[in-house]
Amino acid sequence: MRMYDIIEKKRDGGELTKEEINFFINGYCNENIPDYQVSALLMAIFLKGMNEKETSLLTEAMANSGDIVDLSEIEGFKVDKHSTGGVGDKTTLILAPLCAACGVPVAKMSGRGLGHTGGTIDKLESIPGFKTDISKEEFIKNVKEIGVAVVGQTGNLAPADKKLYALRDVTATVNNISLIASSIMSKKIASGADGIVLDVKTGSGAFMKTVEESVNLAELMVKIGKNMGRKTVAVVTDMDVPLGNAIGNSLEVIEALEVLKGRGPDDLKELSFELASKMLEISGLGDKNKCIKMVRKAVDEGLALSKFKEMVERQGGNVKAVEDYDLFKKAPFKYHFKSRDTGYIKEMNTNALGTASMVLGAGRETKESSIDHSAGIVLNKKKGMKVQKGELIATLYSSSMERIKEAERIIENSIIFSPSPVKKRPLILAEIN
Amino acid sequence: MRMYDIIEKKRDGGELTKEEINFFINGYCNENIPDYQVSALLMAIFLKGMNEKETSLLTEAMANSGDIVDLSEIEGFKVDKHSTGGVGDKTTLILAPLCAACGVPVAKMSGRGLGHTGGTIDKLESIPGFKTDISKEEFIKNVKEIGVAVVGQTGNLAPADKKLYALRDVTATVNNISLIASSIMSKKIASGADGIVLDVKTGSGAFMKTVEESVNLAELMVKIGKNMGRKTVAVVTDMDVPLGNAIGNSLEVIEALEVLKGRGPDDLKELSFELASKMLEISGLGDKNKCIKMVRKAVDEGLALSKFKEMVERQGGNVKAVEDYDLFKKAPFKYHFKSRDTGYIKEMNTNALGTASMVLGAGRETKESSIDHSAGIVLNKKKGMKVQKGELIATLYSSSMERIKEAERIIENSIIFSPSPVKKRPLILAEIN
Repeated sequence: MRMYDIIEKKRDGGELTKEEINFFINGYCNENIPDYQVSALLMAIFLKGMNEKETSLLTEAMANSGDIVDLSEIEGFKVDKHSTGGVGDKTTLILAPLCAACGVPVAKMSGRGLGHTGGTIDKLESIPGFKTDISKEEFIKNVKEIGVAVVGQTGNLAPADKKLYALRDVTATVNNISLIASSIMSKKIASGADGIVLDVKTGSGAFMKTVEESVNLAELMVKIGKNMGRKTVAVVTDMDVPLGNAIGNSLEVIEALEVLKGRGPDDLKELSFELASKMLEISGLGDKNKCIKMVRKAVDEGLALSKFKEMVERQGGNVKAVEDYDLFKKAPFKYHFKSRDTGYIKEMNTNALGTASMVLGAGRETKESSIDHSAGIVLNKKKGMKVQKGELIATLYSSSMERIKEAERIIENSIIFSPSPVKKRPLILAEIN
Repeated sequence: MRMYDIIEKKRDGGELTKEEINFFINGYCNENIPDYQVSALLMAIFLKGMNEKETSLLTEAMANSGDIVDLSEIEGFKVDKHSTGGVGDKTTLILAPLCAACGVPVAKMSGRGLGHTGGTIDKLESIPGFKTDISKEEFIKNVKEIGVAVVGQTGNLAPADKKLYALRDVTATVNNISLIASSIMSKKIASGADGIVLDVKTGSGAFMKTVEESVNLAELMVKIGKNMGRKTVAVVTDMDVPLGNAIGNSLEVIEALEVLKGRGPDDLKELSFELASKMLEISGLGDKNKCIKMVRKAVDEGLALSKFKEMVERQGGNVKAVEDYDLFKKAPFKYHFKSRDTGYIKEMNTNALGTASMVLGAGRETKESSIDHSAGIVLNKKKGMKVQKGELIATLYSSSMERIKEAERIIENSIIFSPSPVKKRPLILAEIN
């Protein structure tokens, strides 16, 4: 078999076989196939596409390129959740203890990531003392004993995807549905869960800009998951507006705690409960109605919050911080961003808010950047809301006024007012089962 | 400017600007742009195409990537000829002295090349003593004084093309009309001639298999040549059958000499005279009718042959060999390949004849292979001709009977007989002015 023939076949619109896809992925990983042949194939895939079967085979080959996490020691049906990423998305912090409280074990490996804020791991580390780099043995033990653990990714999961992604990133071949779907799913498959709930974000603050392309991606990923023997469902959710009001690491943990306490913003609550009930549903705990009731009950009775506390304790964090937010690190500077106009907020660009959050110190610009856990934004007004001149739109937190001034300028430029009310679409736009 | 944006633009079907094409070619040549980005762009170009303007700009950028041969010292309109290559094509050996005899200076740089036989340079070197590695000064001096010189390529012509071609060769991006046209034309432009006559071969023994694609390529190259201020014309000619009867270095020189002596096979004569008259025509020596008459006269009166002798003398060769073919190196083994059947030759695969010639020792399989100037094939029968069982089809020449046996097997397998006459198409299939 020759890589040349594989490139030529895809160039001419042919369907790659399992053997060809494995040859390409294995050859690339062990450096028998050079970058320049792989990038030619990636462009051919980008322009000629791959069908569902090829995409599943690529996912499988990439998942098999490294370690597959073995969760077999943990009894029961293990469910994982993945979000394609958006501004203010802190649902994992809520879902993990919530599902565990309902009896579904959650063994969650999360990333740090670049961008607007840190990843789930960075967020959790804003809790004083919280450790995410625990051993695999302790990780499994915690899930077996208390039903939940959220740790940093260990081992070598889907290294082929890592290598391919780096190449796609510099050859304009990122934005292809098959390549995106196989990239996400290969890591999920390698993470070892029995079931997967996918949250595909759509809109100005998401990678996918239209509902149609988001639904297509969600459908493809659900098919791949099923082809690989995993119970998989997806929701497509709005990311024209940040999720919840808080953007930034400790700010998001605090907001997630509010939801676990039965308070917090409605949109975050709605989506968290929806995702949690889906996780229970695919675990076989009952139909949607029954599951959503279980979820609400776990929150209302304080079981989810208790589970969160248990997890904090197990992972070395200060449990008192769950009740006393003053124990989180505080930002030295706080700034009230007020409206210079009166009207309805027609546009408050979500990506701009994310960038402002990064500027404040909440996210990493490069792998080497460090994160300021206390920095970020709490929104008082969001897209669609009416606001008076001089009214508070957001509070900005940072370690310097310079950063605040720059973030203010970015947010200021991203807001458009309208004299008349602005239509808002629902938060949950599609469900794929 | 970023290579990423250029890839993305072409991926989405955009038209690249002069600045973008220059950035890409210059960056690739000075190793600021890596192979893997270039191969992604090449695949995008392959699948999305380039228009005439982009192709001309790419040609220009590649021509400018190295030396441009300066022929300004030579008075008059300098004409070059290029053939896309086929089996038995020895027209350059005839055209160069023929045009010079008619008063058109020919300063020809030729290659060695891989394949069925050597290149023009290898063929000339089969003349005892003939030198092709003369200095640039001597090259120019010869053309000024006797009107003709054929030498090996010196200097660094179109290095960008060389680099790109090597990458196309391993990424399945060779066979794209814009990339082929710009590759050929960049070298022609860098060779410094004022006018270019192109011979685009079509058929089983050529790179381009159909007349339609050959005409498209010819038209595009003519447009590029004109865009770059060169008088350019093209013919599309049949390569379903080898040109002439001889395949192999000294065998081809002898056949070319026969044509210069007013004999030789009709097809080779027809095409050589056609190309020569076109070369005279674009030099401004008159209309087609007048030019073809000049060409015939130069042959009939022995002027073309004399010019060949002058060239041989100037380049250190033994002029006596022009009259006494016994002075050429002789192959130790000679084999008569006879027909095992009676009928019309419906098919005698041209590529197979080329391969047989290489097997006999006439061509290079790799850059390192050496050439046997005496090896090759002389055809007695060609496609379309009637043949009796036991009649001579070809004579094979080689340094070993093993090679002859292998070549015989290849030729044997390539022949298909038909009981009824076989249609043949004309040699010259299209002219593009």
